Amino acid sequence: MDNLPRVGLLGGGQLGRMLIEESNRLNIPISVLDADQAPAKQIHAHPKALHVNGSFAESEAVRKLASNCDILTVEIEHVDTTILEEAANAGVRVEPSWKTIRTIQDKYVQKQYLESHFIKTAAASQVDFIADLEAAGVELGYPMMLKARKQAYDGKGNYVVESRDDVHNAFEALGKVKGGMYAEKWADFKTELAVMVLKTKDGVFAYPTVELISQDSVCKLVYAPVRGVSTKVKEAAQKLAKEAVAPFEGKGVFGVELFLLQDDSLLVNEIAPRPHNTGHYTIEACPNSQFAGHLRAILDLPIPPDSLKQTRPAIMLNILGGKHPDSHQPLLLKALAIPNATIHMYGKGASKPGRKIGHVTVTASTMREAESAMAPLLAEFDTLRAERFNLPPPTTAPPAPSRHPVVSVTAGSISDQTVLANVYTVLEKLGIAYEKKITSAHRTPEYMATYAKEASARGVRVIIAAAGGAAHLPGMVAAFNKSIPVIGLPVKPSKSDGMDSLVSMTNMPRGVPVLTVGIDNGVNAALGAGRIVGCWDEGVRERVERYAEEAAEESLENDRRMEGENEKRNAL
Amino acid sequence: MDNLPRVGLLGGGQLGRMLIEESNRLNIPISVLDADQAPAKQIHAHPKALHVNGSFAESEAVRKLASNCDILTVEIEHVDTTILEEAANAGVRVEPSWKTIRTIQDKYVQKQYLESHFIKTAAASQVDFIADLEAAGVELGYPMMLKARKQAYDGKGNYVVESRDDVHNAFEALGKVKGGMYAEKWADFKTELAVMVLKTKDGVFAYPTVELISQDSVCKLVYAPVRGVSTKVKEAAQKLAKEAVAPFEGKGVFGVELFLLQDDSLLVNEIAPRPHNTGHYTIEACPNSQFAGHLRAILDLPIPPDSLKQTRPAIMLNILGGKHPDSHQPLLLKALAIPNATIHMYGKGASKPGRKIGHVTVTASTMREAESAMAPLLAEFDTLRAERFNLPPPTTAPPAPSRHPVVSVTAGSISDQTVLANVYTVLEKLGIAYEKKITSAHRTPEYMATYAKEASARGVRVIIAAAGGAAHLPGMVAAFNKSIPVIGLPVKPSKSDGMDSLVSMTNMPRGVPVLTVGIDNGVNAALGAGRIVGCWDEGVRERVERYAEEAAEESLENDRRMEGENEKRNAL
Repeated sequence: MDNLPRVGLLGGGQLGRMLIEESNRLNIPISVLDADQAPAKQIHAHPKALHVNGSFAESEAVRKLASNCDILTVEIEHVDTTILEEAANAGVRVEPSWKTIRTIQDKYVQKQYLESHFIKTAAASQVDFIADLEAAGVELGYPMMLKARKQAYDGKGNYVVESRDDVHNAFEALGKVKGGMYAEKWADFKTELAVMVLKTKDGVFAYPTVELISQDSVCKLVYAPVRGVSTKVKEAAQKLAKEAVAPFEGKGVFGVELFLLQDDSLLVNEIAPRPHNTGHYTIEACPNSQFAGHLRAILDLPIPPDSLKQTRPAIMLNILGGKHPDSHQPLLLKALAIPNATIHMYGKGASKPGRKIGHVTVTASTMREAESAMAPLLAEFDTLRAERFNLPPPTTAPPAPSRHPVVSVTAGSISDQTVLANVYTVLEKLGIAYEKKITSAHRTPEYMATYAKEASARGVRVIIAAAGGAAHLPGMVAAFNKSIPVIGLPVKPSKSDGMDSLVSMTNMPRGVPVLTVGIDNGVNAALGAGRIVGCWDEGVRERVERYAEEAAEESLENDRRMEGENEKRNAL
Repeated sequence: MDNLPRVGLLGGGQLGRMLIEESNRLNIPISVLDADQAPAKQIHAHPKALHVNGSFAESEAVRKLASNCDILTVEIEHVDTTILEEAANAGVRVEPSWKTIRTIQDKYVQKQYLESHFIKTAAASQVDFIADLEAAGVELGYPMMLKARKQAYDGKGNYVVESRDDVHNAFEALGKVKGGMYAEKWADFKTELAVMVLKTKDGVFAYPTVELISQDSVCKLVYAPVRGVSTKVKEAAQKLAKEAVAPFEGKGVFGVELFLLQDDSLLVNEIAPRPHNTGHYTIEACPNSQFAGHLRAILDLPIPPDSLKQTRPAIMLNILGGKHPDSHQPLLLKALAIPNATIHMYGKGASKPGRKIGHVTVTASTMREAESAMAPLLAEFDTLRAERFNLPPPTTAPPAPSRHPVVSVTAGSISDQTVLANVYTVLEKLGIAYEKKITSAHRTPEYMATYAKEASARGVRVIIAAAGGAAHLPGMVAAFNKSIPVIGLPVKPSKSDGMDSLVSMTNMPRGVPVLTVGIDNGVNAALGAGRIVGCWDEGVRERVERYAEEAAEESLENDRRMEGENEKRNAL
């Protein structure tokens, strides 16, 4: 891309490095201000990138960067905003605005700003003296959080005040931090959520709602999209995140962390005016990653809204430095052996215990598959952590790798297995992973309901349900599971021709479809499932086609045999 | 990754740059030998990368690179192999072997080598004198190809000898090239194919079979996987490509170009001992790209075979320099506006007419969708080409963007539309793109057959077929299309209760499934299709669930009304 404004970046850590990855693809130079050989600088030697050695907190260094740039942006909010303000007054665009960065970098001011825009956050009050903290305990209740207003990250600058007896220790622990403190009401959340929000010249757009799992106050895992949460809540989180970001001036990507409370209501926890750890999954899972989005937003380049949508479920695991500089090597080797894993190492020099030195993202066609692929890495992560804290190694072995059933074959009774034999044979021929289940609509109605409701979460995509007589099973499974295609396989009972079973399936009321095949026709039930799975699995589609070709060949062979007989019979 | 052998790369063009992209992610240093500010060097300032300025054809420069490396690899085959041989003798690993590079860089020697390993290629004979070329004409027939043995790429060094009268001109045109010439029998191919092959410590593995479209003797487009070719041919191409690469010594990725002849037989055209233009699609479409594969292969790092499989169809379009240095800017802006397009600009300095300066890859869930997304870029490409050759601008306007029907709804007669009204309403409510078709199994049997056979290629994923009476349509559509799920919707004829229609669908023979819903139950046909589409389309799945929730709400509301009546009736 030519003739674009010249971009300068304050900070060249991993976020800057991943931003540079995107700018490299478009061959856009970015001048980076950070120490020599900072992670971002290591992958960017564009002839027009005029890097500055120094710190984003030094006035002179920021001035030097600004003097060669048309736009300044940040990968960290703890920057000197007075120089950004000065640069803006001199005509340099600062994205997002220095006002935004200044408001956000003081977490108490950020909170007040959000409240003034009617965005729900946990109640808070300023703490200057120990008496303020005592008063806060009365007002907000225990436990409560005591937080540093500035320079806080990854749990540093946070203190859980368990009770009144804890007030003194808490004040001692944080009382000397620069920039002051505030107390915050404890948010009794069931899940931590996060949404990346993109502010562009055209409006405010949200990436999907994801689930954030922290350990030792550091982000450990991100599940995208969040698991076990309704669409309504996911949409509400995106809406709240957009509303929270909208009032801030300037363009770029923002990370919004949220609490999902026990009653499914949401609070904004905090906002970062830059790319964020909870958005790394977007590199693999969305057409335009958070980094691509940020770059395009600040340069006013087109960003199709559909490019923020997720194409596949993803899980991100941070790689934290272990006890020794090479402790994490076994984890990397395990990650290299996973087909759908992408490793990002940040080039931070020697690894230090607990430091974020990289991350791994696993994508798959279902979250369950992604979880299974991630399991051995999680085990390795836990082993590293135990070593780091001198804890005994975790005792639970990682689960054995297995294929997850894509098709679940269920019948109400063991007596239907004769008909199901053909189903199993054909599914095996098609190379589709399946499971066999016995769930009776009449003998085990609750078990059947649970089975149907939880099938999707286990990664099942199609259900084949066989039943005879009253033949309620397929219909009830379709009623309890509201989204999986259910193929009904009518089984001929000993006392009828099976039409009763068949009609019980096709007579489903409007709203609950059972896709029915012929009586005792297990082959077609399996092939029907195969055609469905083949919609997204190329290998299965090819094997479904080959099955048809072989059947055609067999039929033609029979015809050729007839031709031989015809010749003999009609020979003169 | 620590403690790895030190890698040196001969050549720092776009292939080197994309290799570096992968090594950057793993934080693996690669020392690059090429001119200062070569594309690969621009994105690699790793403190341990000891780049060398110079040419991969200069002995001293290669020696200097080798002196700091444990492994040498290439992004171009036109290198000085004597120095590579010398380095190998001194203990440096050369991947692939210098013998492989030496054999391949002389295309006539490459051909003889392949023939000696019983790999089918077009017949050829050496040409030193004009008499050789005349003799070749007799032996191979006209037209034939005259080719330079060395330094040939992108059509340079190729000459089509149309007839005996052309021999003199051909010899004049190529007679002065260094390294000699050879004549090659004309391959009357219907499609040019390509397969990337990876040689590792564990064996020989193939990426998918793709389709290569050249124009002006330069690769223009790659369709991955190849369109309109049977699974058998695709697998045969992968097998032949693996057999062709297997005899060569050393590790790394190889690009194999093949001809698919009119009779579906295959010939190897030529082999590149390095990443290849026809493998760029792997960056977006396969978990491990050709570049990741190459890097891991030469370093003996794990490569799960499944990571070479394609997750989504893809199309790659090369960006060639236009008439003016900024002629390609409108194409870039169009590409930025396509949600699933990734742009790769190579940082080659000023664009020159016809030079490969970048590429765009579009991925989608179907090839048809990818083609539709690519259409405006192709139009832009053609406009640029016309300008470059001073031709009149192309007159065909790019097709208007439209959503492709995912579900095709067909009936045998216009009279079935009343029943189909519910199908359309529900599909619209679910936000599924659909089409309406009239294809009669009895009145237009051939039209129906063509419709069924071509539906997949048009991007249709599910067919809903409605029929009454003899009700053959769903079964015949399922018979002609061998892979799409077909939902049968029985329509009640005026003279029966509709059971005849229904039974005609469920009574399909083993091997050809029709997934049947209830008589006149268009709602369930559409919801069945919705459940299928929801398997891979999250948005549709959510709307299918919401539909069920709304139906539940309506039912509960009716119950509440009853409760009100109950209270009144039973009031004392």
